[in-house]
Amino acid sequence: MFKVTFKFENSEDVSVFAAFGENLLEVARKTNVAIDAPCSGNASCGKCRVKLVGGTLDSKKTRHISDEEYAQGWRLACVSKICDNVEVLVPDIASAYRSRMKVADLSSPDEIKIFDDLKGQVCEAGIALKNDMEVVSIKMDVPSLDDTMPDNERLTRAITEATGMQIVRIPYAVMKKLAVVLRESNFDVQVVWRKNANDVFVYDVLPKDKPAVVAGLAVDIGTTTVSAIIINMLDGSILAKGSSGNGQIRYGADVINRIIESVKPGGSERLQKAVIEETINPLIDTMCRQAKISHNSIYRMSVASNTTMNHLLFGLNGDSIRTEPYIPTFFKTNSMYTADIGIKTNPCAHIIVAPNIGSYVGGDITAGAFVSMLWNKPEFSLFIDLGTNGEIVFGNSDFMFSCACSAGPAFEGGDISCGMRATDGAIEACTIDKETMEPTFTVVGGEGTKPIGLCGSGIIDVIAELFRCGIISPKGKFIREGARVRHDQYGIGSYVLAFEKDAGSVKDVEINEVDIDNFIRAKGAIFSAIRTMLSYCDFDVSMIEHVYVAGGIGSGINMKNAVRIGMFPDVPLELYEYIGNSSLVGAYAMLYSSEAERKVYEVAKNMTYLELSAITSYMDEFVGACFLPHTDASLFPSITE
Amino acid sequence: MFKVTFKFENSEDVSVFAAFGENLLEVARKTNVAIDAPCSGNASCGKCRVKLVGGTLDSKKTRHISDEEYAQGWRLACVSKICDNVEVLVPDIASAYRSRMKVADLSSPDEIKIFDDLKGQVCEAGIALKNDMEVVSIKMDVPSLDDTMPDNERLTRAITEATGMQIVRIPYAVMKKLAVVLRESNFDVQVVWRKNANDVFVYDVLPKDKPAVVAGLAVDIGTTTVSAIIINMLDGSILAKGSSGNGQIRYGADVINRIIESVKPGGSERLQKAVIEETINPLIDTMCRQAKISHNSIYRMSVASNTTMNHLLFGLNGDSIRTEPYIPTFFKTNSMYTADIGIKTNPCAHIIVAPNIGSYVGGDITAGAFVSMLWNKPEFSLFIDLGTNGEIVFGNSDFMFSCACSAGPAFEGGDISCGMRATDGAIEACTIDKETMEPTFTVVGGEGTKPIGLCGSGIIDVIAELFRCGIISPKGKFIREGARVRHDQYGIGSYVLAFEKDAGSVKDVEINEVDIDNFIRAKGAIFSAIRTMLSYCDFDVSMIEHVYVAGGIGSGINMKNAVRIGMFPDVPLELYEYIGNSSLVGAYAMLYSSEAERKVYEVAKNMTYLELSAITSYMDEFVGACFLPHTDASLFPSITE
Repeated sequence: MFKVTFKFENSEDVSVFAAFGENLLEVARKTNVAIDAPCSGNASCGKCRVKLVGGTLDSKKTRHISDEEYAQGWRLACVSKICDNVEVLVPDIASAYRSRMKVADLSSPDEIKIFDDLKGQVCEAGIALKNDMEVVSIKMDVPSLDDTMPDNERLTRAITEATGMQIVRIPYAVMKKLAVVLRESNFDVQVVWRKNANDVFVYDVLPKDKPAVVAGLAVDIGTTTVSAIIINMLDGSILAKGSSGNGQIRYGADVINRIIESVKPGGSERLQKAVIEETINPLIDTMCRQAKISHNSIYRMSVASNTTMNHLLFGLNGDSIRTEPYIPTFFKTNSMYTADIGIKTNPCAHIIVAPNIGSYVGGDITAGAFVSMLWNKPEFSLFIDLGTNGEIVFGNSDFMFSCACSAGPAFEGGDISCGMRATDGAIEACTIDKETMEPTFTVVGGEGTKPIGLCGSGIIDVIAELFRCGIISPKGKFIREGARVRHDQYGIGSYVLAFEKDAGSVKDVEINEVDIDNFIRAKGAIFSAIRTMLSYCDFDVSMIEHVYVAGGIGSGINMKNAVRIGMFPDVPLELYEYIGNSSLVGAYAMLYSSEAERKVYEVAKNMTYLELSAITSYMDEFVGACFLPHTDASLFPSITE
Repeated sequence: MFKVTFKFENSEDVSVFAAFGENLLEVARKTNVAIDAPCSGNASCGKCRVKLVGGTLDSKKTRHISDEEYAQGWRLACVSKICDNVEVLVPDIASAYRSRMKVADLSSPDEIKIFDDLKGQVCEAGIALKNDMEVVSIKMDVPSLDDTMPDNERLTRAITEATGMQIVRIPYAVMKKLAVVLRESNFDVQVVWRKNANDVFVYDVLPKDKPAVVAGLAVDIGTTTVSAIIINMLDGSILAKGSSGNGQIRYGADVINRIIESVKPGGSERLQKAVIEETINPLIDTMCRQAKISHNSIYRMSVASNTTMNHLLFGLNGDSIRTEPYIPTFFKTNSMYTADIGIKTNPCAHIIVAPNIGSYVGGDITAGAFVSMLWNKPEFSLFIDLGTNGEIVFGNSDFMFSCACSAGPAFEGGDISCGMRATDGAIEACTIDKETMEPTFTVVGGEGTKPIGLCGSGIIDVIAELFRCGIISPKGKFIREGARVRHDQYGIGSYVLAFEKDAGSVKDVEINEVDIDNFIRAKGAIFSAIRTMLSYCDFDVSMIEHVYVAGGIGSGINMKNAVRIGMFPDVPLELYEYIGNSSLVGAYAMLYSSEAERKVYEVAKNMTYLELSAITSYMDEFVGACFLPHTDASLFPSITE
């Protein structure tokens, strides 16, 4: 056995013993040392860098580490084996995660517009914007030696008088505080309750003199990114909004790798902890501070996420999702409470889960499809959610089909060497001069912000422009030479968007052939899924009347470029509409409106799930789509012109 | 500030800083150092001994510490103040607690007789001996690509087919294991469920091939002692039985001191932890080992205890119980689950709580009164529960009155210098030769077991015999001299039952005037409560047709001696019946029989609570009863003869 010591900049060393030949990334995971590894250890993303500071490692040299870096001690953990007592310095992933957490400025109308838009559309559809949570003043008789009714019966009696409901349920959390609150308020309190068909459920008893906040939490758990809002349950207003990287990323970038990890001993606990303790709870902390409310004021939670994410949230074994016949534990559930899984809200908070309709079409899509309102319109519409998984819904008020394809994290900047989310420093739009091959780009953060990477919409633009300028071939290989085009010692070509001196980071911002290849496969997966599904329904691209594009790729997405690279079908650009993070908006709808909640269940029930892998033509479609724009150019007449 | 170091025989030192003049027992409590203090620090029990091994303490000298012991460094923590950096050795209370834990040998018919007796009586009363828990084999279709229903719907469908019930509730704990269990059992499982009026609640899903145990836990939480049984919910058989000291004892011997402690910052958490983590959970561990079952097989729990104990169990603030107008948080509750409070059972286990009827007449009495069956008989019966609190019920099938008095822990050996529970080494019965003043006694553990202390029934006998032999006066003072009677330096007389050489401990087994005085006050509280209640109901002692005596005092209780010392009314001895720990038996009844559970609620509803402190004659009655047998000898004609 060898001693492996992980060193950190801001915390104490962690040492562990490992056997000869053990993989360093695996050793780190077992020891609960967090090393960023979005590609889950297959040496493709190059993000699991550690610096050797003592001893020797049996490390393969890869294109991600330059000679100079290698000489400095930099290694990829995923290709390093233990062969000695060793000390490695681990870059601080925790601060990387924290820096990925972002709280929105609600004074900006853009941030809340999508929720207001939804409210308008929901009203138009005749769906009531209200839920059953109420806060009501309740005054009881003060007990005396002649009136010795215990506290819970006294409260029950008063609520029965106020509501006419005979059955009043007072849970443990309320029982626990009852004696103190009633006496401190002289039996004159505010009660937070929910009226159900047969009973009143008492969520809280609050002092009379404090303003009572009845808040709810809506969370969109993406494979890569978690977004959330805290709302006022009584008027639907947004009290806080934020997002964070999903802490599960260290166990793999896609759902398959997460499931594989979850099946290992203690795996589902580790994944559950990563998303709850490291992601959702810190996000709630931050949002509660923004909203100036206590965690205890959050009385309900809604979750929209893909099937794997909601299973891992609940610590469920996901193996059966991954293996034929692909059966999840649930599509719908109303058994879950935040207290069951340690989410920091009021302990009575119930979790509303947007329903899954298959192992690979989850609540994020049913919630998103609800938000697109395609179920309420006669037009044949396409709903495309671009995430780590790409999901597609096609239909109208009469029918709906849905399917999923694994696009990988490329749309959110994962699996791309300079990829990042659409935060400060991300190149979000780009044009390239065909003659000079010089780029012009827009960076998130505004003028003067130096570029440090590329977000999804930026990658689309760069690839479309490289292709349009003839710098790369339809296969994504570099075919022109120039000051910004270069090849490394392995012969891999790249295009430099910003040289180190102009960049916000300590290295060039560039896109290389591996990145382009990853992206082509991602866009190919989306396009072939659309084609396969439409054919299956006996539809043709020309019959599409509206396309809703959702997901975290960013509102800056250039639809023309997305069509140009063969990601989206070649229909008139005016049919395209970017609707933002429809999953979060759907979670909001379910949280705030009980009728919307029921409607999402109805949408889910009416949606037919298509398992693409069971359709033989899908693989051929995919292979054809891994090309710029497509092997069949006739599918993109406007590009070919 | 001074540094206080607590040293232990078997664990590491604990150090803390304390201010000049701070009380050592208080410092220990704040530091979570457990020192036995049944009298809660009023210097009466002499049990909070610590040994000074470094520095100086400002300690009063009391009669509990001999000169020799004082010289060795022994001090009572409760009368020691900090005046120096100090090191004290703390006797190991943890092992003392463990040694108080006792598991019954179920092969002895005596141990289960009371439960069998109850079953007979319950049947006679026409109450069905059954509950709604079932374990049923359920076989589902194995999923396939053509039948992709998720696991929870598949199980629901199968249960609906089996029961005809449309609503099937599958809680989180079951959801969590569902995928794995279904697949390991090839969708052929055993389901533990409970059929309610409107739904089926699924407690567990178990592999087909393992014998399914559906167990329940009944607990009697006494102020001093906690007793429990694990039963088979399907046939009512007893699987394990045990008892333990209540870990809360270190915060005071009676309910009042416990409530005072609970109101301090963090107090209710400390008391809850003491009874759950230190008492009930270790007892469950031990009983599960005895029964050879897993904690997860315990699907329901019932609790019978006094009002304070059930409030402290749930971590509720007890202050309002203690202060006028004496209002508890609940009489009845069905909101509680073991998972809420960390009791080690299946996480879905619901807690049935025997209902309280007042702040000082709790579920132990309603459960016990149920067991006595007095509510089902025409005779005027008295039910006396002897515990740290004494509670009395009088009535028949037409009416019931109840009241409570604070007897202190004397009946269970507390507040008595050589007091102990009825375990090995306890003198449980005694006679004294009037001439020689030599005692003859029976010791628990059988012939050859050396005496180490006195249990409740032994104390009654010794006092009755000392009084009968004229060794003590009606006031409990020694009035004869002899080899076994002696007086200490403070003039306090005592009677030696066993000299050190004949004793199982390292000191004489004796009873002194302080002990006798404590016991006279305890028995006076009981007798005066009986008298006051009977008068209040316009009844007279002569109208009593049956007396049920319950509590942990032991089946060896000599009723004649109990009458002789004026503890029980002077009615024919054949009217007396000792029914054992009726509180635990009542908890068993509620756990095993749903109809019995309802009946206990009915008994509680029909019982009128009498607040003795509100009856002016009670204090006079009490003063008169603090005498052997009573200041009014005419009340005890058979003794006076």
